[in-house]
Amino acid sequence: MKAYKDCTTEELSEILHALLAQYKEYQAKDLRLNMARGKPCVEQLDLSMGMMDVLSSDCDLQCEDGTDCRNYGVLDGIKEAKELMADMMEVNPDNILIYGNSSLNVMYDTISRSMTHGVMGSTPWSQLDCVKFLCPVPGYDRHFAITEYFGIEMINVPMSADGPDMDMIERLVAEDASIKGIWCVPKYSNPQGYSYSDLTVRRFARLSPAAKDFRIYWDNAYTIHHLYDDDQDHLIEILAECKRAGNSDLVYKFASTSKISFPGSCIAAIATSQNNLEDIRRQLQIQTIGHDKVNQLRHVRYFKDIHGMIEHMRHHADILRPKFELIDSILSEELDGLEIGSWTKPRGGYFISFDSLPDCAKAIVARCKKAGVEMTGAGATYPYGIDPKDSNIRIAPSYPPLRDLEIAARLFALCVKIEAAKSILSARGESVPAK
Amino acid sequence: MKAYKDCTTEELSEILHALLAQYKEYQAKDLRLNMARGKPCVEQLDLSMGMMDVLSSDCDLQCEDGTDCRNYGVLDGIKEAKELMADMMEVNPDNILIYGNSSLNVMYDTISRSMTHGVMGSTPWSQLDCVKFLCPVPGYDRHFAITEYFGIEMINVPMSADGPDMDMIERLVAEDASIKGIWCVPKYSNPQGYSYSDLTVRRFARLSPAAKDFRIYWDNAYTIHHLYDDDQDHLIEILAECKRAGNSDLVYKFASTSKISFPGSCIAAIATSQNNLEDIRRQLQIQTIGHDKVNQLRHVRYFKDIHGMIEHMRHHADILRPKFELIDSILSEELDGLEIGSWTKPRGGYFISFDSLPDCAKAIVARCKKAGVEMTGAGATYPYGIDPKDSNIRIAPSYPPLRDLEIAARLFALCVKIEAAKSILSARGESVPAK
Repeated sequence: MKAYKDCTTEELSEILHALLAQYKEYQAKDLRLNMARGKPCVEQLDLSMGMMDVLSSDCDLQCEDGTDCRNYGVLDGIKEAKELMADMMEVNPDNILIYGNSSLNVMYDTISRSMTHGVMGSTPWSQLDCVKFLCPVPGYDRHFAITEYFGIEMINVPMSADGPDMDMIERLVAEDASIKGIWCVPKYSNPQGYSYSDLTVRRFARLSPAAKDFRIYWDNAYTIHHLYDDDQDHLIEILAECKRAGNSDLVYKFASTSKISFPGSCIAAIATSQNNLEDIRRQLQIQTIGHDKVNQLRHVRYFKDIHGMIEHMRHHADILRPKFELIDSILSEELDGLEIGSWTKPRGGYFISFDSLPDCAKAIVARCKKAGVEMTGAGATYPYGIDPKDSNIRIAPSYPPLRDLEIAARLFALCVKIEAAKSILSARGESVPAK
Repeated sequence: MKAYKDCTTEELSEILHALLAQYKEYQAKDLRLNMARGKPCVEQLDLSMGMMDVLSSDCDLQCEDGTDCRNYGVLDGIKEAKELMADMMEVNPDNILIYGNSSLNVMYDTISRSMTHGVMGSTPWSQLDCVKFLCPVPGYDRHFAITEYFGIEMINVPMSADGPDMDMIERLVAEDASIKGIWCVPKYSNPQGYSYSDLTVRRFARLSPAAKDFRIYWDNAYTIHHLYDDDQDHLIEILAECKRAGNSDLVYKFASTSKISFPGSCIAAIATSQNNLEDIRRQLQIQTIGHDKVNQLRHVRYFKDIHGMIEHMRHHADILRPKFELIDSILSEELDGLEIGSWTKPRGGYFISFDSLPDCAKAIVARCKKAGVEMTGAGATYPYGIDPKDSNIRIAPSYPPLRDLEIAARLFALCVKIEAAKSILSARGESVPAK
C-alpha cells in the first residue's frame, strides 16, 4: 500500500471518494456496537457463575478463625480474603485492607481523605492554595475525573513503552512541593497496555519528593490479566521495592477482582505500609463498621487460592485473546503502509491505544458514532479531556462478540482512512466534503 | 422496696455490704457477656440464610429491564431494588439512590462531600471558619464520631419521648447560619427507642434554617423494626411532609437492610429530593461506576416485595421481643421503688436507654466490665463522649442468648445498686469501699 502522504492529490481524492461510498454502506446497516468501555463480555461473566453456588443455606458462613461473616465487624476484611488478595497483589497479607466492590471508590476515598485530613498528619489539601498531580498520558479517564473533581491541577507526563518519563517526574516532584501524587496503571496500562520496565519501577521507588505527603497511586488493575500463557509482562513489586529503597510509605497500591469475578460485585483492596494503613484505619473506622464479608468469603470459597484465580484468568484470556488479535489483524490489513496511524499490541489488560494523524481523533470518533459504533470519547485519555494533538483513541475490544468486533474494527479503520485523507487534502489546500 | 435515699446511713451501708458480697460471687463466675452493640444474634442471622439460595449458577442474573447485574453500571441501583427500598422507606422509587453495604458509609460520604464541595452549590464546609451540627442527646455514637472527625462543632439538644426539643432547634437554626445539620434517629431512636411525635415531624419539615445548606440527617434505621404486631409506633413520612411544607430539599433520609438481612452484606439507600439527588449524582459518578447489583438482586429475589420483608421482620421481632421484655422485667424486679434509675420501654429498635443517678454511669459500666459484662461505654451516647450528668447507659439486648442476658441484666442491676448506694453514702460524707 502506498502511504497517503505520498499519493498525489488526485489519487487521494479518488481514494476518499471511494471510502465515503463505503462509509455510506456502513451507515445503511444501522449498527449499534460499542468499543467504548472495558466491560467484560457475557461469556466472561459466565465464567464466574459458579460463584453463585459456593454459599448456600446449608453452608457455614464462618471464617477459619470463627468469625461469623454474617454479622457486623472486621474492618480490615477477613483473614482468608486478605491472603487471597495479598497473593494476587504480591504483598504480605498484613499490608492489606479489603474494601467494598470498587477500587475506584477506594482511590476516590483516598484522595477525599487527603483533602479533608491530609496524609499521615500533613496539612489537609483543601487548606492548600495549590495541589497538583502528575498524570502519565494517555491514561485512565476515571483517574483524571477524580483529581479534576477535587480541583487538583493535573500535569501531563508523556508515556513510552517503558512507562512514564522518569526524568521529568524525578525533577518535578523534587522541586515542587505542591505535587502530591501521580496516577499510575503500571501493568498493561490503560490505554496502551504498556508495562513499566524494571528501571522505571526502581526509579519510582527511589523518588525524593519535596512533599512529605506525596504518594504514588499505583493502580495495579491488570496484575494477572494476561492474554498469553507464555508471553507475559513482569512488573517489579513496588511495595517491596519502596521498602528496599527506604521509602516504605511512598506508595498506595490498589487492585480489585472486578475483571476476575463480577464487576460491581467484586472485592477491592489497598496494599500499603503499616504507617499508611494506620492513617487509613483512623478514617475508615469512622466511615464504616466493615465491608461485605459474605462476599469476601464467597470469593475465597470460589477461587480457593491464587492458583485457582490464575487458572480462572486463563479462561478470561481464552475469550479476550482472539478479540485483541482480531483488532490487530484488521488494523494491519486495513492500515499497514498507509502511514496514517499506529497502535499498540498489548500482552494483557483491556485496551489497545490508537494514534491517528494529528487533529483527527475527534473526527474519527464522531464519524464512527454516526455509523453506530461507539468509541471512548477522543480526549478522554487526557486530563480535562484535552488531547493536545487530538490523536489518541482508546479501543476496548472486550465486550462485543467477535462478529460485531470485526465490523466495528473495519468501520473504525475506514473512518481513520477517511479523516486522514481529508486531513492531508485539507493541508494541501484542497476543499474536502463536509460529511 | 424502700428508696435508697430514704434509707438511713446504717441501712444503706448494710445494703452496700451485701451487694458487694453478691458482686464478688459474680466476679468468680468468669463471665464474658456483651450488651455493648446493636448486633443481631445468631438466630436472627439464621433467618436470612435462604438469601444464600436465591441466586445460583442456573439463574438468570438479569433485571426485569434486561440489565445484566453481573456487569458494570447502573449508578442509581437496579429498578426493582429501588422499588423495594422505596416501599420500605415510604417514598417514591424516583427519590432513591441505592448504595453499598452500609448506611453509615452513606452518611459519612454525605458529610465528606459537603466538606469538599458544599451542598447544591454552597461554599464547601472545609472553607468555612465554623460548621456546627445539632445533636439530640442521648444519641448514636457513630453519628457523633463522623461530625467530630470532620471537626464539626456539636451542640447537644435534649430529647424527650416526643423527640428533640423543637423550640431550641427552631431558634438555633434560624439564628445561626453555621448550623448545617442535625442528626436524627426519628423512629425507635438510638438509644431511647422513642419515636418522634407527629407535631415534632411537622415542625422539622417547617424549619427555616438561616443556612441554605442546612439538612436534616434523618437516619431511619429502625423503620420496620417493631417488637410488636399490634403496638407499633407510627412516624410521619418526612420527605412528603417537607414537600407539603415547601421545603423539599431540607432532608436526607437514610436506611439500610443491615438489621433485616445480614449486617455488612446488606443494601443501603438514601432518599431525598430531585435537587439533592442531582447534587449527589454529580459526586457519586466520580466515586464509583456502581454498587453491588448482584446483591441488590439477591435482596429483591429473596424478599420479593415489602410484604415479604415485613413478614421477615416478624420473625426478628419474635426473637428480640423476649429479650427486651426480660431486661425490662429484671430491671423492674431489681430496681423498682429504689429510685436510683429509670429506663425506657421501646416498642421497637435495638436499644433500651438507662439513666442512673448523676455521676454514676461511668462507674457502673466499669464495674460491669470488671465482672465480665461489656456495656456501651458510658458517655458514648453524647458528642465527644461527654455525658454532662454521667448518667446515661445504652443497653443492647439483641446479641446474647436469653440465659446470658438474664445474668448480664442482673449483674447490671447489681452494679447500678452498688454505685447508687456508694454515691448516696459519699454525698452524706460517709467513706465507702474503693472497690
